[in-house]
Amino acid sequence: MSKSILEQAPVLANLGQAAITGVTITPVAFKDPPLLNTVGVHEPFALRAIVEVHTDAGVSGVGETYGDEAHLARLQAAARSLPGTDIFNINQLRAKVAAVLAADTSQGGHGMSGMVTGSSTTDRVLSPFDVAALDIQGKLLGRPVSDLLGGAVRETVDFSGYLFYKWAGHPDAEADSWGEALDPQGIVEQARRMVRDYGFTALKLKGGVFEPDQEIAAIKALRAEFPGLPLRLDPNAAWTVETSIRVGRELDGVLEYLEDPTTGIDAMAQVRRAVPMPLATNMCVVSFADVAPAVAAGAVDVILSDHHFWGGLRRSQALAGITDTFGMGLSMHSNSHLGISLAAMVHLAAATPNLDYACDTHWPWKDPEEDVVLPGSLEFKDGAVAVPTLPGLGVELDRGRLEKLHRQYLASGLRSRDDTGYMQRIHTAYELKCPRW
Amino acid sequence: MSKSILEQAPVLANLGQAAITGVTITPVAFKDPPLLNTVGVHEPFALRAIVEVHTDAGVSGVGETYGDEAHLARLQAAARSLPGTDIFNINQLRAKVAAVLAADTSQGGHGMSGMVTGSSTTDRVLSPFDVAALDIQGKLLGRPVSDLLGGAVRETVDFSGYLFYKWAGHPDAEADSWGEALDPQGIVEQARRMVRDYGFTALKLKGGVFEPDQEIAAIKALRAEFPGLPLRLDPNAAWTVETSIRVGRELDGVLEYLEDPTTGIDAMAQVRRAVPMPLATNMCVVSFADVAPAVAAGAVDVILSDHHFWGGLRRSQALAGITDTFGMGLSMHSNSHLGISLAAMVHLAAATPNLDYACDTHWPWKDPEEDVVLPGSLEFKDGAVAVPTLPGLGVELDRGRLEKLHRQYLASGLRSRDDTGYMQRIHTAYELKCPRW
Repeated sequence: MSKSILEQAPVLANLGQAAITGVTITPVAFKDPPLLNTVGVHEPFALRAIVEVHTDAGVSGVGETYGDEAHLARLQAAARSLPGTDIFNINQLRAKVAAVLAADTSQGGHGMSGMVTGSSTTDRVLSPFDVAALDIQGKLLGRPVSDLLGGAVRETVDFSGYLFYKWAGHPDAEADSWGEALDPQGIVEQARRMVRDYGFTALKLKGGVFEPDQEIAAIKALRAEFPGLPLRLDPNAAWTVETSIRVGRELDGVLEYLEDPTTGIDAMAQVRRAVPMPLATNMCVVSFADVAPAVAAGAVDVILSDHHFWGGLRRSQALAGITDTFGMGLSMHSNSHLGISLAAMVHLAAATPNLDYACDTHWPWKDPEEDVVLPGSLEFKDGAVAVPTLPGLGVELDRGRLEKLHRQYLASGLRSRDDTGYMQRIHTAYELKCPRW
Repeated sequence: MSKSILEQAPVLANLGQAAITGVTITPVAFKDPPLLNTVGVHEPFALRAIVEVHTDAGVSGVGETYGDEAHLARLQAAARSLPGTDIFNINQLRAKVAAVLAADTSQGGHGMSGMVTGSSTTDRVLSPFDVAALDIQGKLLGRPVSDLLGGAVRETVDFSGYLFYKWAGHPDAEADSWGEALDPQGIVEQARRMVRDYGFTALKLKGGVFEPDQEIAAIKALRAEFPGLPLRLDPNAAWTVETSIRVGRELDGVLEYLEDPTTGIDAMAQVRRAVPMPLATNMCVVSFADVAPAVAAGAVDVILSDHHFWGGLRRSQALAGITDTFGMGLSMHSNSHLGISLAAMVHLAAATPNLDYACDTHWPWKDPEEDVVLPGSLEFKDGAVAVPTLPGLGVELDRGRLEKLHRQYLASGLRSRDDTGYMQRIHTAYELKCPRW
């Protein structure tokens, strides 16, 4: 005799409704050092939005995304459409977000400092809701999010140490503990501390700040200091095709990959044909619409995924399936972020078999006292973070810390990320140029 | 104050272990009419393997796959490696299957009658374990499998009526209820019954059996009889490029798509450039390794997915992400199957937003009395099947029916699908030819 399905299940009857009842969106600001890039310098605070999704199952989940004002408005508009949606129906979540944004013709406010402009608005707005939904699903199931993504293939996720040229401190403020790094020796010293404190086993330098020869010298100095560590250089498309090819050839045998030396699929393809190392991108392939043209052009070897603009964790897995299928490598991009995003990145990375590289993270640049989650869930050891095994994302919102960072947001006066404007207020002659060299 | 995650979850503590304890694989045979195709004719019984996966959580799940002897041996070898695997870790399931099959150099036994030979052995073997794992996950969660795949975007899944040239009955047996269909009029009569009994809103003709002009006439007769229904023709690569182009042009405006007129990516690309309708395939793109070459060649417009050879439901979703990203259509292929496969197909289709076409199914050709699941879960109405909302796949193994079909398997003497050999035993002069015209 057959048992009925419900008799077989020893733990649960059908959970029935687990529908969204509401969404709380809280913008926060956290201290950020004056990190330099080719479009300017990080402002004193980085902005994020913390998204809490509530359900009639009595369980809430969290997501984290950009905090720019225009993005916040889109999040709020999307959130108003979500009540009633089944928390397991991420396809329907996406359809509702897309419907709301179909009428959105506003520009900008992408939260990525103008460096990633072509990503899908729907996917950017969907992302924190997808993450929160998976957090809730995991809590209801008593399983980590990585299980909902196919299961962890690794117990720890490797990250790279993300090196930045930087000033000693923000103008009119004290030097931060990292101090100045404006030359190769400063970058090497910064790397020493990163490796010592976090155990990173790969290093990435944010370039595009100084003339290419200085950045070549910095990479060579890193190679001399850390002969065993994979190195990456990312000038955020600061270079012409010619400069990109020259730098690429000079760094033959030194770089693990060269990231976004120049702008656009066609130019990247030209560089790729002429340099010896893999080319990586999180600028010319930033949405599903970019993939086919990039494949056709042979533009890149490695795509840096980022669940914040690829539509959340499930769609980032679709991207992973694409890179695997098309013989491309997969790495992971980072913006300045807090613990919810780190947890989401770790779960995604854990459940992605073909993640070939250590992930980027801005984590070391964050004041360890500032976050929106309870401390202790996510610790770096040997350059890696252990995959949380608690239900859902495995991080717990700390209302006190959330409120503190929200007050800091209100007090900061910042409403959109503007690395260029901040630089120009400090150095009035500063000009945005692309390519710069 | 923050509540702890476990305090927040009202339903469940962590389920802890839900590890595989064992696998039961039962070959079954069910009656199949003498359906004709370009490599021969269906034998009196179709073979399938029913895979039951057991866990220490006390819940079992089911999958269904090909029943050929060589495939059964691979399933058994894979099954021996699975005990101890977390039922939520499909990535680990796949890694274990791949490891077992790495040493497998055997050829054939793919269960697809030689018509699909290039699919991935690992993905073919993984498939029923992936389905069973999702069935178990759904039962533990109290949620349908479609929820674990991102959520249903449709309440019912459309299928197409699958028309076959056929004999009245197997040699030395009585005519079956469908009777003979060896000309356009016979096909139209078959279609009338299919549409009347099942309500199909699309029709597909298995071609490659008669000279192309007769099959063109059959399609035109169907068009005259059913002016509103999308029509498809699938000769299983029976034609040369020239014949394919001629047929395609003659059926301009008549076919929804033309499926696998000829063999291989390059030849399909030649045909595609010359015919007016979309070209579909489940023969030249049957694994992830085929996708990039097919895209580069511009070989096809539509891929027919099939979770039985694309590695289960999760990897079929990766394929859906690829077709969406590369601007290709997505349809679904079928072999002769029972209720477990139908349930899996319905859940996958329900949770795939970019499924653009009614799915294929051999369902009407199965004796309604024969199956391995309890009747009533899956009913056709208006050409569609309602997506099960019970936990897991929503079908329940019927041990009595399973045993009956297993005994039928033992008694049948059949151990591998061999449409060609069966035809040659009946018509000794029959020759396998590709292309045939």
